[in-house]
Amino acid sequence: VQHAAILSIGSELALGRVIDTNAPWLAARCAALGIRTVRQLTVADDRAPLRTALAHAVVDVDVLLITGGLGPTDDDLTRQALADAAGQPLVDDPASRAQIAAFFARRNRDMPPQNTVQALRPASATPIENTCGTAPGIRMALGSVAVFALPGVPFEMHAMFEREVAPVLAAAARGAVLRSRDLHTYGVPEPEVGARLADLMQRGRNPEVGTSADLGVITVRINAAADTPAAADDLLDAAEAEVRHRLGSAVYGRDGATLAAAVGAALVARGRTLATAESCTGGLIGQLLTETPGSSAYYVGGIVSYANEIKQNLLGVASDVLATHGAVSEPVAAAMARGARAACGADYAVAVTGIAGPGGGTTEKPVGLVCIGLATPNAVDAATYHFGSDPPRHAIRLRAARMALHRVRQALLAVRSES
Amino acid sequence: VQHAAILSIGSELALGRVIDTNAPWLAARCAALGIRTVRQLTVADDRAPLRTALAHAVVDVDVLLITGGLGPTDDDLTRQALADAAGQPLVDDPASRAQIAAFFARRNRDMPPQNTVQALRPASATPIENTCGTAPGIRMALGSVAVFALPGVPFEMHAMFEREVAPVLAAAARGAVLRSRDLHTYGVPEPEVGARLADLMQRGRNPEVGTSADLGVITVRINAAADTPAAADDLLDAAEAEVRHRLGSAVYGRDGATLAAAVGAALVARGRTLATAESCTGGLIGQLLTETPGSSAYYVGGIVSYANEIKQNLLGVASDVLATHGAVSEPVAAAMARGARAACGADYAVAVTGIAGPGGGTTEKPVGLVCIGLATPNAVDAATYHFGSDPPRHAIRLRAARMALHRVRQALLAVRSES
Repeated sequence: VQHAAILSIGSELALGRVIDTNAPWLAARCAALGIRTVRQLTVADDRAPLRTALAHAVVDVDVLLITGGLGPTDDDLTRQALADAAGQPLVDDPASRAQIAAFFARRNRDMPPQNTVQALRPASATPIENTCGTAPGIRMALGSVAVFALPGVPFEMHAMFEREVAPVLAAAARGAVLRSRDLHTYGVPEPEVGARLADLMQRGRNPEVGTSADLGVITVRINAAADTPAAADDLLDAAEAEVRHRLGSAVYGRDGATLAAAVGAALVARGRTLATAESCTGGLIGQLLTETPGSSAYYVGGIVSYANEIKQNLLGVASDVLATHGAVSEPVAAAMARGARAACGADYAVAVTGIAGPGGGTTEKPVGLVCIGLATPNAVDAATYHFGSDPPRHAIRLRAARMALHRVRQALLAVRSES
Repeated sequence: VQHAAILSIGSELALGRVIDTNAPWLAARCAALGIRTVRQLTVADDRAPLRTALAHAVVDVDVLLITGGLGPTDDDLTRQALADAAGQPLVDDPASRAQIAAFFARRNRDMPPQNTVQALRPASATPIENTCGTAPGIRMALGSVAVFALPGVPFEMHAMFEREVAPVLAAAARGAVLRSRDLHTYGVPEPEVGARLADLMQRGRNPEVGTSADLGVITVRINAAADTPAAADDLLDAAEAEVRHRLGSAVYGRDGATLAAAVGAALVARGRTLATAESCTGGLIGQLLTETPGSSAYYVGGIVSYANEIKQNLLGVASDVLATHGAVSEPVAAAMARGARAACGADYAVAVTGIAGPGGGTTEKPVGLVCIGLATPNAVDAATYHFGSDPPRHAIRLRAARMALHRVRQALLAVRSES
């Protein structure tokens, strides 16, 4: 497999004022073409850091993709940095100059004198035509590394990459293909996932298997290298089957799949509907469920019962239950779920009440305490979770919402599917 | 000015499957502390690229910030890479081990054996306590460079940086200050904002002023450089006052402020409460309102009326109105708002019904068509918006939710505040 590096040039990127979307976009396109990105670099528009970055970028890779620094102003240093790295002078390229002039002519404008520097290129380089803007790209070799310098404006870069770079990379990759797949799990802690997959996660294996964690979701990432897309997919299929065998129903989906969509699929398979009653999550569970197009087939809606009066009036939670146990309690969570199921006419209802913080916690009921109620066609129950008082409000809310969705999915998986 | 480098470790980042938000966050925090980030690097979880990246990262900088690779699994290589770079062995840190064990004890769980590797550190390093997770950070020197290795989970990293790293960096920065402020606006189109601020946005000024747009929100970004924090803040204050003078009530907040929080402040100032009725947004407006701690003071809750039965049974929308005008119509939006205000006992209610796509559109009612109803103490009305059929589902939903909040804020601003 060929290896690539990506270098993004721009002080606004290095200073963190703008998030660079070019590097992840290029890395994903390289992966699809069978080229593995082993490093990304971002540097300010300054000569010294740019020089050292360029020297580092080309170490042990076959391809270097550069974005940015091709504009007409004094802080656009890519042309000079490439010439310096190659030990060559910059030369004027008449064809580039004609293209830049034509770009302005199409807009009925004279070519400003500043733009003439965009027609410069290192002596051994080939310019790449920019069909959407004034900055030509640069194609050259630094030692054995194929270097492509592209504009920083995303749509100009995308067009130039697809037209002029992707075909070259595809040919260079010569059939080598790198494909990735993510399997998302919930309900098994990360160390336990790691233990069950330990042999698959050993270094140097193909496919590679790794894990990452995000607020309760543990994702198993699989990367496979092969000579053809079909062979890479075979490796991914085999690894996915093995991971699913070891983790069972904890695996709820792959790649872009969400826990909410998995709940939806389980509802559809059983011909059932769901309602929600949300206090501390304030509508988040409904929002997650309705992110999935077509969710109206199984999600009927719900009640955001932020005030106790709404818990009483719309969900029928008895005032003495609220008074005796408090709004954040298992009896209230159960009553909310029962009430939402009845009010909305759904088969299942899930309810969340908790303390998302940062204020409102007590010794007895600290921030992070969440009660989740679940009403099914057969029963109503509730359970208490501690998501910790350290995570920020949004993290506690998202953990609570995910746990609520997980509870619904677990209950559905215990019921035979109709299909 | 001190110079910093940022190194993000993770194959999912290098391959472009996940966008790294840690590096821009750290770079922005460094800028606020007066430290200039000259390079960012992202590398895969592989020994050789990690080794060369680490060697390059420390060139000509004073500080290196590392995120990721501190987890308990075999693909977490940061500890070993730092030890190798320093030519030191890894040693077990009893204090870290005790903290990790205590983390699990607080969750009533035994410490899994895999997590013991997280207590290792290079011999000369100092561990940094992680108050939100199991991975301790690492503080050490590589030559003259101060190195801080932080966890990759954003909220753990943020907490550790603010508590243990920012004070050290602030002391090292000694005076040179770069400060930024964002002013968020809604309701004035970006070209109009640009025209009103044209002279402030000229290149090379201090403070620098720029704009960016995100789904209806136009943000005015101000950066000021000065010798002291107080002098930088004076520049920011003057620029903010001028921008507010030119844009008036379109400015709803600064920096981390949200439109939902601005609605909350306007409600509190008038002693009023709000309810919601959501169809195509599915709970998003409630979620946005309840992101703000203390929102229970003004947001009572609402009804997610995804199914028409819920519009009828819980919001009292008449079946003939639904049949005559369709669920996505101004009469239904108005009836939803009226129903939510009554059912929830609130002073104001806002309702959204629309077609978020990608399916469900017709020639007459295309994807992106959204009707927003507003019930106030005095009146009920509704209006229709076209957010376009090209944006993805989540973008249409967010635009609809923001417009709904904007409508509430507009209605409140027309009423005299009690304070």
